[in-house]
Amino acid sequence: MERVSHIAEIAGLKEEARRLGFSSVEERNEALSLIAHGLERDWESIKAANDEDVAEATDAGVAAALVKRLVYSETKQREAQNGIADVMALGDPIGRVRQKRELDEGLILTQVTVPIGVIGMIFEARPDALVQIVTLCLKSGNAIILKGGSEARRTNAALVASMRKSLEKSRLASGWIVLLESRSDVSEMLTMEDSIDLLIPRGSKEFVSYIMSHTAIPVLGHADGICHLYIDERADLSMALAVAYDAKTQYPAACNAVETILVHQQIAAAFIPALKQRFGQDVVIHGDERCAALIDCIPYQDGDYDTEYLDMAVNIRVVDSIDEAIAHIARHGSSHTDAIVTGDEAAKRTFLAQVDSADVFVNCSTRFADGYRFGLGAEVGISTQKIHARGPVGMEGLLSTKYLLEGSGQIVADYTGDGERTFTHIELSTEEGRHA
Amino acid sequence: MERVSHIAEIAGLKEEARRLGFSSVEERNEALSLIAHGLERDWESIKAANDEDVAEATDAGVAAALVKRLVYSETKQREAQNGIADVMALGDPIGRVRQKRELDEGLILTQVTVPIGVIGMIFEARPDALVQIVTLCLKSGNAIILKGGSEARRTNAALVASMRKSLEKSRLASGWIVLLESRSDVSEMLTMEDSIDLLIPRGSKEFVSYIMSHTAIPVLGHADGICHLYIDERADLSMALAVAYDAKTQYPAACNAVETILVHQQIAAAFIPALKQRFGQDVVIHGDERCAALIDCIPYQDGDYDTEYLDMAVNIRVVDSIDEAIAHIARHGSSHTDAIVTGDEAAKRTFLAQVDSADVFVNCSTRFADGYRFGLGAEVGISTQKIHARGPVGMEGLLSTKYLLEGSGQIVADYTGDGERTFTHIELSTEEGRHA
Repeated sequence: MERVSHIAEIAGLKEEARRLGFSSVEERNEALSLIAHGLERDWESIKAANDEDVAEATDAGVAAALVKRLVYSETKQREAQNGIADVMALGDPIGRVRQKRELDEGLILTQVTVPIGVIGMIFEARPDALVQIVTLCLKSGNAIILKGGSEARRTNAALVASMRKSLEKSRLASGWIVLLESRSDVSEMLTMEDSIDLLIPRGSKEFVSYIMSHTAIPVLGHADGICHLYIDERADLSMALAVAYDAKTQYPAACNAVETILVHQQIAAAFIPALKQRFGQDVVIHGDERCAALIDCIPYQDGDYDTEYLDMAVNIRVVDSIDEAIAHIARHGSSHTDAIVTGDEAAKRTFLAQVDSADVFVNCSTRFADGYRFGLGAEVGISTQKIHARGPVGMEGLLSTKYLLEGSGQIVADYTGDGERTFTHIELSTEEGRHA
Repeated sequence: MERVSHIAEIAGLKEEARRLGFSSVEERNEALSLIAHGLERDWESIKAANDEDVAEATDAGVAAALVKRLVYSETKQREAQNGIADVMALGDPIGRVRQKRELDEGLILTQVTVPIGVIGMIFEARPDALVQIVTLCLKSGNAIILKGGSEARRTNAALVASMRKSLEKSRLASGWIVLLESRSDVSEMLTMEDSIDLLIPRGSKEFVSYIMSHTAIPVLGHADGICHLYIDERADLSMALAVAYDAKTQYPAACNAVETILVHQQIAAAFIPALKQRFGQDVVIHGDERCAALIDCIPYQDGDYDTEYLDMAVNIRVVDSIDEAIAHIARHGSSHTDAIVTGDEAAKRTFLAQVDSADVFVNCSTRFADGYRFGLGAEVGISTQKIHARGPVGMEGLLSTKYLLEGSGQIVADYTGDGERTFTHIELSTEEGRHA
C-alpha cells in the first residue's frame, strides 16, 4: 500500500479551523448527519478494507485482543452511528458564556468558549475510535489531524474517504480533516508547533512518553497509570476484597487498573490471606516482607512499586499508617487514580485532601476512572497533567475561551491618572448561557 | 554580590507543594498577614537594598522608565500591603466545586479546584511584582520559584529574606519559596519538567520566545503583542479617532498597544488625514500605498505588519472590506487583542465571531486587555496560548482540578456485560460551592 505524505496539508489547517470555528451548529450537525449516512452508504467498501486489515494482522500473529479491537463489525458501525446521533443531540459547545461582567456602564466583558483550533490525534488500531474522534472534533469546531495504528490503515483510509465524500455535500467541505498514513509524517508533525494547537496521543506509555518529550506542542494525555488502593485499618473487609478484586482483575490492561495495594498493619493479618484466596491462581502477588510473612508470594524487588504491570500481577505492601500510604502514593504513583477503602470519616477526608492525583476515590474501584462512567459523554482521553484538563477528558477538553469586550467608545486614558472614570466590575448573570 | 545556585532546593518543592495544597485557608491567610507585617518591620533593610540596586542601575545608564519600575518606594510598599489585604479577603480558591454528579445511588463524583503545584515565575526588575506573585501563589496553595530581573537582585533578596523570617512563625514555614539568583539556574530550571508544573515568563518577546522553545514544561504567556484596530466603514469618526489615539499612545510599550490600524476604503479619505492630525508629531506612521496617497508617511516595507514597535510608531493599511481586515489579522496578528470600531451590528457580530484572538473588542481601546481592568484582581500574566488559560490570567490560572469519587463499595464489574447496574448520571447542584 502506497503511503503518501500529507504534511503539506497541515499548514492550511489553521485557516480551516478558523472557518470551522465560526460555523453554525446547524452546519456542523448537518455535516455529522451526512457522515453518519455516508458510513451506511459505504459500508461494503469499509468492510472490505477492514477484512484486509484483519486478515493481515491475523497472518502477522497480532495478539487476539488487538485483532478484536481492529475488527470494525456491523455492530461497531451501528454503535458509531448512534454515537454521532448522541453528539448531534448535544447543544452547541461553541459560544457558551463562562463569565460576564460590566467593567463600566456600557462596557461589557464576556468570556465565551471557542474551539482550540487544530488537534493532532494519534491513536490505537481501533477504527471506531476514528469515527468518535472526528465526531467530537467536528461538533466542537476543531480541525483534526488523524494518525491511527498502522494495522488499521486500510479501514481508516476507507472511513475517511467515506467522510470526505459525504462532506462534499456539506457547507463545511472536508478540508479540516487530514489523515496521516506514514510514520515519518508523525515525526514531522511533532515539530509543527506553529500549525498545531494540541496533541492527544493514546497508546503505550513508551509511545506517549516519547511524544511528550519530543515536541513543543502542548500534549494532553498520560504516560503511566500506576494506581493504588489503600485498605485502611477501619475498612469493611468484604467491601475491601470486592473492590481490590475488581480494581485488579476487571480489565488489568487498562490504565486505571490497580498496581499496588497498600494495607494498614492492623488489618493485614485478616485481609491479606483472604485477598490471596480471592485472587486464587489468577493474580501473581509481589509482597513486601510483612506481606510475605502472611502468605506465599514473590518477594518484593527494587522497582516493583514503579512498575505498571498491565497484567494479572499486583504489589502488596503493609503500611503503618494512612500517612505512610499517602507518602507511598506521592512517591511511586503517577497521579492518575488512587483509592481508599475505609469506614472512617477522618481517614476519608485526609485521603481526599492529601492525595494529589487526577482521580481520588473512596470505597469504590479505581476502574470507574473513565469519561463514559463519569458521565462526560465520549472520552477524548485521560490526562494526568495539571494544565488545561485533568482526569478523564470529554468534549470540554477540545475547547478554549476568548474574551469579548463591547463598548461605546471607551478609552483607557479616562480610567488612569487624573481620568474621571472608575471601573464598576459588576458580575452579570451568565444564565442565558450563550453569546447572542 | 555572591550568586549561589539554588537548584537543589527545587527538587523538594513538589512535596512542599503537596503539603501547601492541603493547608487550610486560615493557615494561608495567617501566613499572608505575617508577610504583610514583616514587610513593614523590615522596611529599612528593604529600602537600603533597593537604594543600592537603583544606584547601580542609574550608574549603568539603565533607561529612566526601567529605573522607575525598579524603585520600591514607600508608596509601592503600601500598595503591595494593600494588595495582600485584598487577596486575604478573597474566599479560598482551593476546594471549589466545579461539577457534581451522581453516577449511581451512593456514588457521587465531585470535581474540585486544587493548586497546580510548583510554579516557576520569571519576571522583570520590578520588586512590587515579586510581592504580588508570592501573594497569589500562597493564597492558591502553589509552591513558587522566583527569578526576577537581575537589576533588582538586592531588593528581591531583601524581600524574600523578610518573607522567610515572617513565615518561620507560620505553620506553613517557608520551604515553598525558592529565589533563584543566577542566570545559569534559569537554564537548568528549564530542564526540570519533573519538578515544575508551569512556567510563567514575563519580559521581552525574545526572552519569552526563548523560554517557550527551550523547555518541555508547560508555559503560560505571550511572546508577541501585535494588536490591530480596524476602522469599519460605518465607524463614528470621532470615536474612531479617540480609540485609535488611546490604543497607540496611552502606553505604547505595553503588549496591548496597537501596532497596525486597518481602515475601510470608504472611510479612509475622511479618517486617515484626521488621524494624522491627531497623532501630530508624536507618532510615526508607516502607510501602505493608498494611505500614502492621503498623507505624508513612511512607505510600507516588507515585514512592517509583523513588527511589534512597542513605540510611538504605527502601520496604517487601507482595506476593501471587513473580510480583508479579518484576513490581515489572521495572517499578521499574534492572537492577543484586536478591536473594531463600527456602528454596524452585523460587522460587530462578524468581527467578534471570526477574529480568533484571546481578546476581541468592539468600540473600545485595545489597552483594556488587562487583568485588573477585566476585574480579575491581580494579574499573573496574559496568555495567547489556547491551552489552560487564555487572555489576561488571574488567580484562576494557578489552579487545576481533581475528581473525587465517593462510593459505598461499588465495583465496575456490576456495570458491564451482564452486570445488573446502570449509571444514573444525575447532575447535582454545585451551589454550596465547596467540598466539605
